[in-house]
Amino acid sequence: MDIAIIGTGAIGGLYGARLAHGGNRVHFLLHTEYDHVKAHGLVVDSHFGDFSLKEPLVYNDTGQMPRCDLVIVAAKSTANDALFPLLGPVLKPGCPIVLLQNGMGAEQKLAALYPGHPVFGGMCFVCTYRESPGVIRNTSNGRITFAPYAPADAALLPEIAGIFDRAGIETERFDDLSLARWRKLVWNIPYNGMSVIMDCKTDFLVGNPAMRELISCLMCDVIDGARACGHIIEPGFMDIMVAVTEKMTPYEPSMKLDFLAGRKMEITAIYDNPIRIAAEHGFTMHYANTVRLALSALEQKAQEKRV
Amino acid sequence: MDIAIIGTGAIGGLYGARLAHGGNRVHFLLHTEYDHVKAHGLVVDSHFGDFSLKEPLVYNDTGQMPRCDLVIVAAKSTANDALFPLLGPVLKPGCPIVLLQNGMGAEQKLAALYPGHPVFGGMCFVCTYRESPGVIRNTSNGRITFAPYAPADAALLPEIAGIFDRAGIETERFDDLSLARWRKLVWNIPYNGMSVIMDCKTDFLVGNPAMRELISCLMCDVIDGARACGHIIEPGFMDIMVAVTEKMTPYEPSMKLDFLAGRKMEITAIYDNPIRIAAEHGFTMHYANTVRLALSALEQKAQEKRV
Repeated sequence: MDIAIIGTGAIGGLYGARLAHGGNRVHFLLHTEYDHVKAHGLVVDSHFGDFSLKEPLVYNDTGQMPRCDLVIVAAKSTANDALFPLLGPVLKPGCPIVLLQNGMGAEQKLAALYPGHPVFGGMCFVCTYRESPGVIRNTSNGRITFAPYAPADAALLPEIAGIFDRAGIETERFDDLSLARWRKLVWNIPYNGMSVIMDCKTDFLVGNPAMRELISCLMCDVIDGARACGHIIEPGFMDIMVAVTEKMTPYEPSMKLDFLAGRKMEITAIYDNPIRIAAEHGFTMHYANTVRLALSALEQKAQEKRV
Repeated sequence: MDIAIIGTGAIGGLYGARLAHGGNRVHFLLHTEYDHVKAHGLVVDSHFGDFSLKEPLVYNDTGQMPRCDLVIVAAKSTANDALFPLLGPVLKPGCPIVLLQNGMGAEQKLAALYPGHPVFGGMCFVCTYRESPGVIRNTSNGRITFAPYAPADAALLPEIAGIFDRAGIETERFDDLSLARWRKLVWNIPYNGMSVIMDCKTDFLVGNPAMRELISCLMCDVIDGARACGHIIEPGFMDIMVAVTEKMTPYEPSMKLDFLAGRKMEITAIYDNPIRIAAEHGFTMHYANTVRLALSALEQKAQEKRV
């Protein structure tokens, strides 16, 4: 099976390498690290084992890639507007597109651009980061939750998830993409933003009593926002999200790493969109909005430095 | 007139020196800077002029101070529990006590401890800071708003304010102490906390669009909290508070200076108390609570370093 990985960072590299090890022909799109990975391969050091690829199939232009049976978009959501229009050459007629990203609102854009293709969201519960060019470290977790953008495509879920299952990747299937995305936000909205604002790792956010309380307020905010939109998340889910975070090796969430590396943070996908959608359904996410505004201020400050 | 200044920091030093220049005999209580000020005097460099005192009357023990006609408590609210019980020797029978502090809840404690004494709150709209031991710089503003803790003491307001007026200090009088304290919080709750969390001065908080929006959310939170408690603040007051802040020389609010100097922040007086009081009246101050929890986490982290 030919699989395209659009964006070979901590997520795309990890899952792409695992899918390659599972016997698929995986084509990696790279940008800044193209030359390095072409020369030195892709090193993936996971708590599940070593999935390094000595000579991965790498590209720096979608126009050079073959048409694939499955296209996995794993770039940062901040690149979507530039990247989505470039996917055409990679798509076999009717092939599914899987979006491995955080936040909300991107599947809609993919579906609008490529109407003949079933679009799936994939929510990764995984601690993974790019240690250096071409080197990815996956310290814990790894499960992907799949859900179809169009309810009619739910029938394809077993097939999509099966590709990952056969590569040894734990999967979970949800019929309701919005619900699945809101559930993922129960983790992302508190931990991503607060790790940036407080300049800390997950251990401080679960260990400090005031932070624990604020994380809990933020999780309630997300659950209340979801409910306003008609998506019911069981209250016990909060405790599970805190418990898994306690078990993690102290971790810098992706947004913190983006911020430290001077990359644009995924504020639109993770904060702006859900807060706006909840507001359209009559609920103000006060706590999340406070975090959003603090992040936006930090982002603008960082942007001014970049210019 | 004998006036006691209990706590000779940026506030106590500034107003004490101005009252001394106005012809009063001012007795300054000091703690860590006692020796320095005894040897070198008190330097007060204000945008209103120079109010330095070469040989101020200084003390490091209330037991050594004379009984005064007016006692001004200007220490940080974090010192109240230790300091309030020591005021007995400084009080002439029935003399008024004026509390120049931020936040909420302290006049009640003073009134309970010294029942024969009228207690007044004084809210200082002033940019002032301790530049070095014994050196205080007042870069802008200076008005004090006075209000009586017991409504019956409102009749004494002209007398109290008059003492300051005659020393050239701009004063304002409010009959309703709680309203006056809530009004002051419209400034303190947004700017104090956010300058610490964002590690910035006032210029960033008024200049950055996201921060401006968050400051506005926090101000609304305070005004809504006040309203829940029966205190009506005119909506235009917010704009005035933003406008005066825009005119300030970029300023580090007192809480930021406390944090940078490793001193305890006034979280209880400025955040915990008003948020609790509003909650008792049925209003949740979500925005202020977010700031409170982030500050509490930073405070605990700093405390662990101090130990």
